[in-house]
Amino acid sequence: MGGGAACRDLCRPCQPLRSAASEKDAVSPWAGLPGVLLLLPGEGSEILAVLITRSTRNTPRGRLQGHTCGVVGGKGVSSTRAFGGTVFLLHLLGDPWHSPAPAVGFLTGERMASSGSQTKTRGNHSGHFVQPANPNVATMPEDVLYHLSLSTSTHDLPAMFGDVKFVCVGGSPTRMEAFAKYMAKELGLDHPGAEYPNICAGTDRYAMFKVGPVLSVSHGIGIPSTSVMLHEVIKLLYHARCSDVTVIRIGTSGGIGLEPGSVVVTQQAVDASFSPMFEQMVLGKRVVQRTDLDQELAKELMQCATDLPEFPTVLAKTMCTSDFYEGQGRLDGALCSYTEKDKQDYLRAAHAAGIRNIEMESSVLAAMCSACGIPVAVVCVTLLNRLDGDQVSSPHDVLVKYQQRPQRLVSHFIKKRLAATGTLKA
Amino acid sequence: MGGGAACRDLCRPCQPLRSAASEKDAVSPWAGLPGVLLLLPGEGSEILAVLITRSTRNTPRGRLQGHTCGVVGGKGVSSTRAFGGTVFLLHLLGDPWHSPAPAVGFLTGERMASSGSQTKTRGNHSGHFVQPANPNVATMPEDVLYHLSLSTSTHDLPAMFGDVKFVCVGGSPTRMEAFAKYMAKELGLDHPGAEYPNICAGTDRYAMFKVGPVLSVSHGIGIPSTSVMLHEVIKLLYHARCSDVTVIRIGTSGGIGLEPGSVVVTQQAVDASFSPMFEQMVLGKRVVQRTDLDQELAKELMQCATDLPEFPTVLAKTMCTSDFYEGQGRLDGALCSYTEKDKQDYLRAAHAAGIRNIEMESSVLAAMCSACGIPVAVVCVTLLNRLDGDQVSSPHDVLVKYQQRPQRLVSHFIKKRLAATGTLKA
Repeated sequence: MGGGAACRDLCRPCQPLRSAASEKDAVSPWAGLPGVLLLLPGEGSEILAVLITRSTRNTPRGRLQGHTCGVVGGKGVSSTRAFGGTVFLLHLLGDPWHSPAPAVGFLTGERMASSGSQTKTRGNHSGHFVQPANPNVATMPEDVLYHLSLSTSTHDLPAMFGDVKFVCVGGSPTRMEAFAKYMAKELGLDHPGAEYPNICAGTDRYAMFKVGPVLSVSHGIGIPSTSVMLHEVIKLLYHARCSDVTVIRIGTSGGIGLEPGSVVVTQQAVDASFSPMFEQMVLGKRVVQRTDLDQELAKELMQCATDLPEFPTVLAKTMCTSDFYEGQGRLDGALCSYTEKDKQDYLRAAHAAGIRNIEMESSVLAAMCSACGIPVAVVCVTLLNRLDGDQVSSPHDVLVKYQQRPQRLVSHFIKKRLAATGTLKA
Repeated sequence: MGGGAACRDLCRPCQPLRSAASEKDAVSPWAGLPGVLLLLPGEGSEILAVLITRSTRNTPRGRLQGHTCGVVGGKGVSSTRAFGGTVFLLHLLGDPWHSPAPAVGFLTGERMASSGSQTKTRGNHSGHFVQPANPNVATMPEDVLYHLSLSTSTHDLPAMFGDVKFVCVGGSPTRMEAFAKYMAKELGLDHPGAEYPNICAGTDRYAMFKVGPVLSVSHGIGIPSTSVMLHEVIKLLYHARCSDVTVIRIGTSGGIGLEPGSVVVTQQAVDASFSPMFEQMVLGKRVVQRTDLDQELAKELMQCATDLPEFPTVLAKTMCTSDFYEGQGRLDGALCSYTEKDKQDYLRAAHAAGIRNIEMESSVLAAMCSACGIPVAVVCVTLLNRLDGDQVSSPHDVLVKYQQRPQRLVSHFIKKRLAATGTLKA
């Protein structure tokens, strides 16, 4: 731990690289690449990092937006990450959260393009423009957001979306439309004749509704469907020059050991092995990212739950799976290769690991948003207690009532945030 | 290879276990479980298997419907599979396709329940009832197909679906509605006033339309969304007592080295590492299944393409990924961690491996349907040539025209099949 403490001292207080320097000054220290990064766990989903280059003059230090860690099959994990406003190909050889000593990361390959002049510091969530972790996006003459049926050449995205501060996402298009209408009422924007048409009406892949600073978007079922939407919505927010955006999933889930209708604010998204990891294949290679969520945001949401003691709400781990049946240990799918006892053992082990609900999207949301430096939360209601059964068989009206609970909580959060910045008149 | 050849002789000709025996007789040889299975590659997606039990009398032999193979991290792979009409927990220790000697599989754990009296032999696709690979389904007092908004207690599934012979699936609900209307015209069922309402109108997760023997169902984007639909549709077909059902995906994809608008009939679905494998997590453990498709069905579809020489059609491997952007080597997503050269190298390696298109659902379709003994095919049009770019930017009307091509091919196939059985009058 000695090395870690020494390095921790060295890099505190962390000055965001570009806060007091022109872009040219800010990127010049990277000239000696490839370099070595010393990495330490930061607050929330950030890594404190110190870059050691061949030139010891002007050693940059700063926060690494987003993070990637974990070792798969003994090999390091490569990923693109923004550091001090510049995007690098990062190769990590350790896990700063679990290593006794600071982990080491190499910035390998060519330095990728600067992520442009819009990036500002994130201090207090003020003035942070949405930034994809892909420098190519800035140089594309046109960007067709195919699955949203929008494009930079056919739509004025800054005019349409520039004021968005909250992106709320959920599986069902109908539910996300209902949420938009509910938010219109809550924000006092529901004047007679007001309409909230589906902005993505040119496609049936996703539905999108906008009410003042709130964008309500459906993502369908599962990680791949959610990842397609997120890639395109993050680019949309970038093209629209949105700043200080918060992403919240309001969804449904199966509970573990909770009364049906309970709401879970996700503390950490974990995979089916209970690890805070999101694994995906990139160019045929396994890449793993961490799936932490914004802890401050989760605390704020839990405070909102305390403000509104209408239904039980817990802060807990959420398990994210790629299948609803075998993948969640259900006995009632078209395929099943285990017994009731196997299932109970698995669910009880999940409960012992601090998991209180299971759904199918949280990990990709956590990984992608945090890679792009966007604060993200997951708020899901539990439709059943999986220790008691597998089938979702409550009456329709009960399920509808349950599904309104995350909406109610997130609406309260949005109004509170807007009131705090003076944007919402009481 | 010597052992393999000897065993191959031993178990040929394979007699389906239950063709000449009562259910009681047929299952009695399994009494000595756990036993050992010797496994050899069979035709198409089948494994020829010989069970060695403690009793050498009455050694059963037959075809293993569906299959599971591959070794992950040095550990065997467990799965439930039907053998001779009975469902077992199978633990494979080798891969009969790639082992020089016959692979060995253990039937471990308790024998699971017989899959019921509806299973008949598949000879010539005649009289084969749809059967989930899960004995629990037969004993459930009610089965709520939650994401389809259907249930065995509220809907007369045999009356609604008993005559279904073709289940056509695709991502977009609008496209699957258009396909149903097109099939109505093609089958001469489109009389004035005929309507094809969405059978799943109680939910917005999936849309389902029925036209005579054709069921047209949307599956959304990606493996998890498709797997939820498939679990519930396979159970629906079982509850409805459907027999001789063929499943065909009619979808869109990105081509590799093909003229945009070309149609690919999938010979084999492969993963992002080009392996014919579908990997999923079951009770926190990695389980791998093969992803072969029905070769006879693929040949029939290619013959239909020859009958209708309206657009280029090829029989080739299809890569199935869990992401549209990084997962398919695109440079234009919100995240990108590689260069144009990395991407080109990857796509060219895929081309060299015989892959001609990339989509996001074929592998789970292949794995799940073949596990349940349902013949399955994948027919996708390519919307662009990925060697030339990443964005889907062709005009809307061109894309619509391309998307009709798999529908045209599959309609021809369905009419030909129905004409051959005398069901469709010319």
